[in-house]
Amino acid sequence: MSHAGSKKRKLDKPAEDKLYFESYADVSIHEEMIADTVRTDTYRKAIFNNKSQIEGKVVLDVGAGTGVLSVFCAQAGARKVYAVEASSIAEQAEKIIKQNKVEDKVEVIKGALEAVELPEQVDVIVSEWMGYALLHESMLNSVISARDRWLKPGGLMLPDKAELFIAPINDLVVEERLNFWSTVKSQYGVDMSCMTDFARRCIMASAEITIKPVTVEDVLSHPVKFAELDLNAVNLEHLSSVKGRFRCLCFGSAAFNAFCVFFAVTFPGSRHPLVLSTSPFKPETHWKQAVLYLDQAVEVVQDTLVEGDVHMYPSEEGSRHICIHVDYTVAEEKKKSKTFAISDGSSYAEPLKRKNYDGQEEEDD
Amino acid sequence: MSHAGSKKRKLDKPAEDKLYFESYADVSIHEEMIADTVRTDTYRKAIFNNKSQIEGKVVLDVGAGTGVLSVFCAQAGARKVYAVEASSIAEQAEKIIKQNKVEDKVEVIKGALEAVELPEQVDVIVSEWMGYALLHESMLNSVISARDRWLKPGGLMLPDKAELFIAPINDLVVEERLNFWSTVKSQYGVDMSCMTDFARRCIMASAEITIKPVTVEDVLSHPVKFAELDLNAVNLEHLSSVKGRFRCLCFGSAAFNAFCVFFAVTFPGSRHPLVLSTSPFKPETHWKQAVLYLDQAVEVVQDTLVEGDVHMYPSEEGSRHICIHVDYTVAEEKKKSKTFAISDGSSYAEPLKRKNYDGQEEEDD
Repeated sequence: MSHAGSKKRKLDKPAEDKLYFESYADVSIHEEMIADTVRTDTYRKAIFNNKSQIEGKVVLDVGAGTGVLSVFCAQAGARKVYAVEASSIAEQAEKIIKQNKVEDKVEVIKGALEAVELPEQVDVIVSEWMGYALLHESMLNSVISARDRWLKPGGLMLPDKAELFIAPINDLVVEERLNFWSTVKSQYGVDMSCMTDFARRCIMASAEITIKPVTVEDVLSHPVKFAELDLNAVNLEHLSSVKGRFRCLCFGSAAFNAFCVFFAVTFPGSRHPLVLSTSPFKPETHWKQAVLYLDQAVEVVQDTLVEGDVHMYPSEEGSRHICIHVDYTVAEEKKKSKTFAISDGSSYAEPLKRKNYDGQEEEDD
Repeated sequence: MSHAGSKKRKLDKPAEDKLYFESYADVSIHEEMIADTVRTDTYRKAIFNNKSQIEGKVVLDVGAGTGVLSVFCAQAGARKVYAVEASSIAEQAEKIIKQNKVEDKVEVIKGALEAVELPEQVDVIVSEWMGYALLHESMLNSVISARDRWLKPGGLMLPDKAELFIAPINDLVVEERLNFWSTVKSQYGVDMSCMTDFARRCIMASAEITIKPVTVEDVLSHPVKFAELDLNAVNLEHLSSVKGRFRCLCFGSAAFNAFCVFFAVTFPGSRHPLVLSTSPFKPETHWKQAVLYLDQAVEVVQDTLVEGDVHMYPSEEGSRHICIHVDYTVAEEKKKSKTFAISDGSSYAEPLKRKNYDGQEEEDD
């Protein structure tokens, strides 16, 4: 399905928030998140690893969804958990909390974090706020606001660190898709090889960020960390512009046709920190990886240097949408630049088993 | 991704047509159609089977896309082929026609069929007009208009017959999705079984037509033909309301949780007709099958009678969108009714390998 020709229109903040929160009103996204065992198990372990700091304490769960993290905190001995959730999934969280007999400890508060009043300061903030490419959805902003308003000095952030990585890749699926048009003649006796250029323009010259699983074989160098956020200290201004440099040495001969961006978050722990990584070298998560296609593939060999700068910032069209600008050079070639964005749609969440077509999102006007 | 809470807004015909034609401007849908060997090979065979009626004759290709069917007709000896295509893919069709050296025979005409003037009447109309559930996209209307305006009396229609089928099915994937919530407790120690009802409401009570491949094992009875369209005779009024009855006897014990609707089209042939079938019992095509979920599953046993009426008609929200109303009874239970629609989005075409999120389609206003 191509959504070509759509006109861009800037949404005001309340309208955008409404669409955003509604994207969490369906079961599919919650099914996908709960079924993501890397995600849910890591949070569970992180909460139980920090049992000593949670027992008898007050916890705030920002964007609680179905309330699963709040239940974990109650099970870990929290005295009180405030589960703040703006979407209508809050009603299901209520039921789940009752079903698990922790309704005396967990209180669901329906509303946007910024608009909610808590009766007390909290000792711990837990939140699963990470979007595609870490910063899509801008939910971290709400977590930071929550920290500044409600977390006691010296309180615990779960997670407390986020890191962003980049690596050059060879997306073989795209190569095969481009090559497809040269195979048509042998199949049907019609030469369609001239479609390759058009396919390249549609697929690679697109400035869209594509979320898909990158396989280990596709990765052309060790990934490089280009930014790190200390969640105890980061402020909203930092989040409006996250930047960093990278220098990658390629493993061997390949057609470099895209960058891959991914993240990891770290949970503090009495013994050792726990990392939730979305690296292509680790088991797949529902975040997969963010793939940024170059307009044209570039041939690299062993030790070819790919270096540059990455800049992530919220899109002007919708402040919850992330843009990624990359300046890069390959070996001695001249510097190139490309700006990528998650399309101006409001597709924040992706179901596990999507239907084969989606509703057209129309605005209330 | 849930597109919950979208407001319905009726598009006017030109705006709807624009969105519809633009959905064919991207490479993905054409890649999917050409890569569908059942589709493309059957058209190729049908055209060469009718070589005697095409040689030296004039052909009209309605909605020519990349022009592959027009090239087949030229290869089969047509004197002239008018390849009418409203989307910008027409520019690629021009290139393909030149690359195959049939530019003296094939003329690409960019425009909507209804707005196009041909210099002469034609002997043959070929068109691959079938949408999901046959009638989604309403492209057959254009083929009928073309037939009435441009086809010589006694001219050849390729295809010349379309049939619609229905069968009760057990969609196991949905059963597993509903059951997922009962498995969470053993995985994470949190009982989320109360989510099953919510999941059922989101997934099954939805009135959306879901396009997905139905496996043979899912089908609970012999499919029943409920409507047949003679493309030499059908008129626009017929297409505004396609109706039929069905009576199915179940094979054995199962949870009947959906209907599946699919189609076949037939090409005339000197020796024997050629059928392009999208049955779940035949190799998969890019049309897959249309699945209509019941609000609740019904247990059936061997020889349980499932019978009723199907009514297909264009949605009021967008005349290119199909609605399917089903009245049905299972054994002695009382009659139930449900109306399904392809959502009010403008997602006519589905790419082979979709990106993981789609642009929000915004209208020009």
